[in-house]
Amino acid sequence: MDFLIKIEDMKRIYRQSILEENGIYRRENDAEHSWHICMYALVLREYAPKGTDIFKCIRMLLIHDLVEIYAGDTYLYDEKANSDKRQREEQAAEKLYSVLGEQGDELKALWYEFDEGKTLEAQFANACDRLQPIILNYRSKGEKWKENNIHVSQVIEKGKWKTRNIDERVRQFVFALLDECVEKGYLLS
Amino acid sequence: MDFLIKIEDMKRIYRQSILEENGIYRRENDAEHSWHICMYALVLREYAPKGTDIFKCIRMLLIHDLVEIYAGDTYLYDEKANSDKRQREEQAAEKLYSVLGEQGDELKALWYEFDEGKTLEAQFANACDRLQPIILNYRSKGEKWKENNIHVSQVIEKGKWKTRNIDERVRQFVFALLDECVEKGYLLS
Repeated sequence: MDFLIKIEDMKRIYRQSILEENGIYRRENDAEHSWHICMYALVLREYAPKGTDIFKCIRMLLIHDLVEIYAGDTYLYDEKANSDKRQREEQAAEKLYSVLGEQGDELKALWYEFDEGKTLEAQFANACDRLQPIILNYRSKGEKWKENNIHVSQVIEKGKWKTRNIDERVRQFVFALLDECVEKGYLLS
Repeated sequence: MDFLIKIEDMKRIYRQSILEENGIYRRENDAEHSWHICMYALVLREYAPKGTDIFKCIRMLLIHDLVEIYAGDTYLYDEKANSDKRQREEQAAEKLYSVLGEQGDELKALWYEFDEGKTLEAQFANACDRLQPIILNYRSKGEKWKENNIHVSQVIEKGKWKTRNIDERVRQFVFALLDECVEKGYLLS
């Protein structure tokens, strides 16, 4: 129960992605984001490579941002903050999962697997985690991309490695969407 | 994608449960709640009866409140609003899941199973769904319970049927917590 109470903090960790609410933009929090990408994995499961364990993907996505409770949210395009992100998050994982004993070791291993992005499940989970913010950026007319002068090449570069096994239909969908974002001025060419 | 975009509305549907954020209370939304109870199911899985399919529980919990996108949130103790809740939610389910074809039928069936609360999975999922708001009420010193003059018997009554298969250790934990809530004046005796 201590763990389940502690992770409530996820509802107070705000990401760079923004949502519209009653005509006002507000930032999305980690709990909302985590739920939403689990729904991505569930609904888009037919696009996962054969043999992908979707339950494992969803477990990964449920917990993938928990380390931010201690390490904070790191903006994908903030190179300085990203340089020590791994170290900060590893320390956070130790602290966070130690209260759960054996089950904590299991969840920690799952987070490492997600973060390394090598297995089928980690690839599909990372794809969902990368796709959802792109959709949010599109829907907010690139508000955050524009604020941070993000180029389309950066979006592609950041997504590339951890999603290399993604279904070709999803890749084409994302590329077409990014082209449209550049065309509409949401994203720099 | 239309479905995944539509369900963003969950982040704008506010529940009666309240959270503290920087010393201020705010209501929890459906997306946050859904993520949190999936974590309950994952972490408390050892308390589920043998043979419970936890992935099915988590799928149920991910989608269980989606009908509120069209039907709105109905406060558990609002008897008037609860009288036509089922009808409103059934209509909502039709509208919501029709865009997903066969997959929609699967998710709709899963929601019905959850709502009927008969199977092992529906029982465990409902237990998580009932337990989390009790913890939030406890943590907010019964703010919403007091506002609505809720008695401990109502909390027990509402939880009883759909969680009758719950592990005895969880039941004892909840009963002790409710006793404490009455003692502290969070809940009427």
